[in-house]
Amino acid sequence: MTTRVRVPASSSNLGSGFDCIGVAVDRWLTASVTIETTGIGFSIRRRGKLGTVKVRADQDLFTRGFRAACSAGGGIVPTGVMIDASSDIPVGCGLGSSAAAIVAGALLADGALGLGLSRDQVLEIGTTIEGHPDNIAPAVYGGAVLSVHTQAGFVASPLAVAAGIELVIVVPPFPNDTKTARATLPQTVNHTDAVVAAGRAAALVQGLATGAGALLTAALDDVLHVPYRRARIPGYDAVVAAAERAGAYGATLSGAGSAILAIAPRERAGAVGRTMLAAWREIGIEAELINCPGPVAGATAITAPRNMVKELL
Amino acid sequence: MTTRVRVPASSSNLGSGFDCIGVAVDRWLTASVTIETTGIGFSIRRRGKLGTVKVRADQDLFTRGFRAACSAGGGIVPTGVMIDASSDIPVGCGLGSSAAAIVAGALLADGALGLGLSRDQVLEIGTTIEGHPDNIAPAVYGGAVLSVHTQAGFVASPLAVAAGIELVIVVPPFPNDTKTARATLPQTVNHTDAVVAAGRAAALVQGLATGAGALLTAALDDVLHVPYRRARIPGYDAVVAAAERAGAYGATLSGAGSAILAIAPRERAGAVGRTMLAAWREIGIEAELINCPGPVAGATAITAPRNMVKELL
Repeated sequence: MTTRVRVPASSSNLGSGFDCIGVAVDRWLTASVTIETTGIGFSIRRRGKLGTVKVRADQDLFTRGFRAACSAGGGIVPTGVMIDASSDIPVGCGLGSSAAAIVAGALLADGALGLGLSRDQVLEIGTTIEGHPDNIAPAVYGGAVLSVHTQAGFVASPLAVAAGIELVIVVPPFPNDTKTARATLPQTVNHTDAVVAAGRAAALVQGLATGAGALLTAALDDVLHVPYRRARIPGYDAVVAAAERAGAYGATLSGAGSAILAIAPRERAGAVGRTMLAAWREIGIEAELINCPGPVAGATAITAPRNMVKELL
Repeated sequence: MTTRVRVPASSSNLGSGFDCIGVAVDRWLTASVTIETTGIGFSIRRRGKLGTVKVRADQDLFTRGFRAACSAGGGIVPTGVMIDASSDIPVGCGLGSSAAAIVAGALLADGALGLGLSRDQVLEIGTTIEGHPDNIAPAVYGGAVLSVHTQAGFVASPLAVAAGIELVIVVPPFPNDTKTARATLPQTVNHTDAVVAAGRAAALVQGLATGAGALLTAALDDVLHVPYRRARIPGYDAVVAAAERAGAYGATLSGAGSAILAIAPRERAGAVGRTMLAAWREIGIEAELINCPGPVAGATAITAPRNMVKELL
């Protein structure tokens, strides 16, 4: 028997939904696990975009997700865990590759050891490791998700997204360092800016649900993190301006970057993507386009005889 | 001919929707205007709860709304304007009595002078006078409304409210001073608090739409204004605790107070209201209950021969 999982990429923040809103994106990490009772510790085979990751297996996010799930599910961590992972999610570009690995690790443990974890438990495990829920939640549940810390832990709520709007993501060939990006944030902000930020976070939820362009334009114009991070991404201003010129309601960092996300009327999405790519190309950056024409499912896991799993997932 | 208007009360903020979210409440201001070409300036007859208002007619909010509408509509302010107003909206208690008067003044001018103002123009006029749109918008449009400042001016968007939840408002017999309440706010806040505030504003929009209790509980626990204002309202903590004990998702200031608003599952709303009243009564405060079982319409105006108007509105 083996367990195999499939976890989507995700884009968080969407401007003013800082640390609380994210959306699943149609790029995937797949992984399977084999428990070898004669083995020792964790070993991880990394393929695809994961090929560049250089982390000791016992410190890898797959391992951390796996171990945390064992702990939450009351299971004992097995002695020999072999994970085979492949991904086409760009690493370090603000597309939730870390969240996908953590969720994959947790779901592999859940499946292989029969822990019976709920999706909400996986959200809690992933959020504890990552520090914030905004990529973990869409990786687990799919679609667009609001995650809020409440007295009862993190609550994830699926957001309505109007049919007439479309997300467009362009990814440059260089990563951003999320930890450094986080360190650039100020200790305090003006109260008036905090009030503006809250109104725009509300506008993001309402704009996604209704497709109201003016609300989305306001919501994509974040004041809490983007002003401190945008200078780290070469060409950011030009790409955002290009998106708006081509008919997008606005554009902003995907997560902490380096990818840039736009929201556009569906009929403008093609032109918006092309124009954003062209703006980066003008300064010598060959970026990649990810189309997001509709909602993307969350993580799936299957446990079955080894020879059947590849067919099923 | 005369013009007669009817404008609802409103409750703003609802916790984390500071300065951007408000909801119309089933208390009403009614007013009519007569233009006497032989008269000079403004005169205002005040009845009901307006009886205690002591402001010179030329500085009254009716007058300011009326004049601003004339200006926006390209009309000349008439020389003799007699306004007859009556209201059962408590004054100075965080129930939008000021917003109702401003909106009434603007709509009286619109009707009497045939200015043809749109609702959006009335929102803009009212917001300019009041400084924020959160009471003006529900007074104009009714229901629950999100108002966000955008490049195209203030945009008001009607919020979905789940059928299973109900607002409960209790009003003590003393006003709060909104201007002083605003002055108690700090100049800066921690960035982490601003992030929490934004997440809870998003949770308010989503919680109202879905009725998700955990989201509403988080959303009603504001961090941007209530912590600085609650000490000004005697019994605030006891009344909020009473609401939660009786089954409310939470409770908070209505506007800047003095009234307190709770959101509860519909089947608990009756008990929540009684328990809140009892908590205030215990410290000698006889408060008044306003039930909000369903959506309340926005302002209406009618211009007709004087003897018909009373029948029609």
